[in-house]
Amino acid sequence: MPRALLVILDGCADRPVKELGGKTPLEFAVKPTIDRLTAEGSCGLMDVISPGIRPGSDTAHLAIFGYDPYKYYPGRGPFEALGAGLMLSPSDVAFRANVATVNNDLIVVDRRGGRYIDPSEVKEIENVINNEVLPALKSKYGIDAVYKQTVEHRGVLVLKGGVSPHVSDTDPHVIGAKVSEAKALSSDAKITADYINEFTRLVYEKLSSAEFNEKRRRDGKGPINMVLLRGAGSLKNFEPLSSRYRIKPAIIAGVALIRGIGVALGMEPIHVDNYIGSKDDDFTTAFQAAARALKDHDFVFLHVKPTDSMSHDGDAEGKAMIIERVDTGLRRFLEEAPSDTYIFITCDHATPIVVKEHTGDPVPFMAWGPDVMRDDVTRFSERDCIKGFWTRIRGIDVMNIIANYLGTLEKFGE
Amino acid sequence: MPRALLVILDGCADRPVKELGGKTPLEFAVKPTIDRLTAEGSCGLMDVISPGIRPGSDTAHLAIFGYDPYKYYPGRGPFEALGAGLMLSPSDVAFRANVATVNNDLIVVDRRGGRYIDPSEVKEIENVINNEVLPALKSKYGIDAVYKQTVEHRGVLVLKGGVSPHVSDTDPHVIGAKVSEAKALSSDAKITADYINEFTRLVYEKLSSAEFNEKRRRDGKGPINMVLLRGAGSLKNFEPLSSRYRIKPAIIAGVALIRGIGVALGMEPIHVDNYIGSKDDDFTTAFQAAARALKDHDFVFLHVKPTDSMSHDGDAEGKAMIIERVDTGLRRFLEEAPSDTYIFITCDHATPIVVKEHTGDPVPFMAWGPDVMRDDVTRFSERDCIKGFWTRIRGIDVMNIIANYLGTLEKFGE
Repeated sequence: MPRALLVILDGCADRPVKELGGKTPLEFAVKPTIDRLTAEGSCGLMDVISPGIRPGSDTAHLAIFGYDPYKYYPGRGPFEALGAGLMLSPSDVAFRANVATVNNDLIVVDRRGGRYIDPSEVKEIENVINNEVLPALKSKYGIDAVYKQTVEHRGVLVLKGGVSPHVSDTDPHVIGAKVSEAKALSSDAKITADYINEFTRLVYEKLSSAEFNEKRRRDGKGPINMVLLRGAGSLKNFEPLSSRYRIKPAIIAGVALIRGIGVALGMEPIHVDNYIGSKDDDFTTAFQAAARALKDHDFVFLHVKPTDSMSHDGDAEGKAMIIERVDTGLRRFLEEAPSDTYIFITCDHATPIVVKEHTGDPVPFMAWGPDVMRDDVTRFSERDCIKGFWTRIRGIDVMNIIANYLGTLEKFGE
Repeated sequence: MPRALLVILDGCADRPVKELGGKTPLEFAVKPTIDRLTAEGSCGLMDVISPGIRPGSDTAHLAIFGYDPYKYYPGRGPFEALGAGLMLSPSDVAFRANVATVNNDLIVVDRRGGRYIDPSEVKEIENVINNEVLPALKSKYGIDAVYKQTVEHRGVLVLKGGVSPHVSDTDPHVIGAKVSEAKALSSDAKITADYINEFTRLVYEKLSSAEFNEKRRRDGKGPINMVLLRGAGSLKNFEPLSSRYRIKPAIIAGVALIRGIGVALGMEPIHVDNYIGSKDDDFTTAFQAAARALKDHDFVFLHVKPTDSMSHDGDAEGKAMIIERVDTGLRRFLEEAPSDTYIFITCDHATPIVVKEHTGDPVPFMAWGPDVMRDDVTRFSERDCIKGFWTRIRGIDVMNIIANYLGTLEKFGE
């Protein structure tokens, strides 16, 4: 039975980079394996959402997995919660959180609390919120809740049952502004908004006097004394990929958000040591795990994060180097994967080095496998893929194209 | 901060023309500046609405400005009114008007009253209608109204408040047919239909006996004794471009209809002397005005009309000559525009010389700017642009693509 690997190179598509001689990182990188598959397979350009639209990683992955984000996107909160390993029912409301530093007037001084949070601090922050703040709120509002730090300054707050997602952010989104009041955006959200505003007050009070902040002050660091909330949302009921495309799917992703999306869509998460979405990720082990997973799944999704992180940092050569290490991993995959495996490679969006942010540029797409059409494209890049068999597709088409090769799709009509 | 110029060459896309040696006017014209930008930038083909659909200039521009015409098009009347400088509220109903010649049985002899209307005649027509016809109707129906001639035989009638746009045309659209009765197309349109039929009778009576028609008869011309109405509609409430794309937009357009669309979408109209949408338009001055406008706007739209008019007249060499004069204007623009300016060139539809009417053929699209991908296309034409980076886009994508380069678009998701 045929099976498929889908590799998403996060933010890998780019624009010409001066320090790479006007090439894009994909054009500059030496990637013999990816380019051999490209020469043997067929290519195209892909608009992840539609031309010019700048996708987030969340909406982009939803689209690529076949779920129209305009219909299915529930805001960042629920996906962050899933990625953190929290279980969510559709009646829960999840908020994306940032730990932050505010002054006495609740003016935001640092939206990320210095970004790197020490593991001991993470534990203390979670303790204060889960053991002091949330129980006090529970006795006042009768609402169960849980708070968890995820990566660096990021966290998630989940309110369980009887609440509304229609409340505005407390995160003012810029430094120098005051923490916002949560406002009810619909008539049933009054209590939730009150709860959130009380949460803001209590978090400030309890964190400000927490012991770890004494130490931070002694070390000359700003205190972590606020949790900024945004992107309130409830999880939709997704039809799982298994029934939608009649596949048995698995996901290898170091980033909580992406793994969370996969899990919400019914993919089995596969853990890989030293694969956490950082620039030191072990791609060879990840690709080996993918090859192994294809022995009892017919679809494995492998997410590569640091191509995106390198772009956000403006590191063109670093980005090219990540591509080269992915290429090495892919070579190992080819040695170990079942022989009837199709391979698809694309990106969830462009993150051009010159912009350092996600953009709405089209991204390259490649399909390889026993009976995939061979076109004239011999290099996997933004410019080369124009001339390929797939010309121009959209993110929402990817799973249908994959299922078409796997032969799992129901015929539409007779 | 980056900024953008969008040039629409009205009806410029074409089909092969025998007298140009089988080339299209874009292939035939010598246009070194446009072709240099093409060589340095990236191209594609664009379906303005969707493949094969013949757009009007109004629906085409709505689409290119990002407003789905199937959702937003209110009929020709409201845009003609805006273009004529009339203020419209959403409760007003506007009709596109033609002054015409009819015989004693109200059979249309000339749908355009000879097309060229002398300024003194325009004044008299407006006088008769605004001072004799409309006041009589006001006293009978209590409806305020205003009539205005725009360009040549074209005019606009606006009924203010308490009326319905759901009435059929009085314009039979062909010569040799009788002026049509306006029919109510919904139950609330009965009074409006009665009003319009009374308007037809009164206009015929009052214009027939007007003094300027005595002179026309003496000069051997048919009288201008009818106003044919069509395209009744009310203006929608458009979200302005400024909030939709977070830009400060301006428009340079000689044609009232196009300027009207721009104004309705919140563009600041910029007047250019000797730029009225005729074949004698001063493109160099228009492009200079565009360069100047980009100093305090981040988006300037420049409309080129006579490429379309030349096609309607079947003048292939004239069309090529217009393209060459536009090219000269663009060279001047490059000398005077801010250095961080992106340039986008496309057409609102094809008007092939061999057809002399709008067609639904795809049109070329070009993007140029500091970090725009350079593809292999070196000439801006229907056939060359196929091979470009943008492969195939739609009119509705243009503003998203522009905003993507300007970096003004909100990210969708995180």
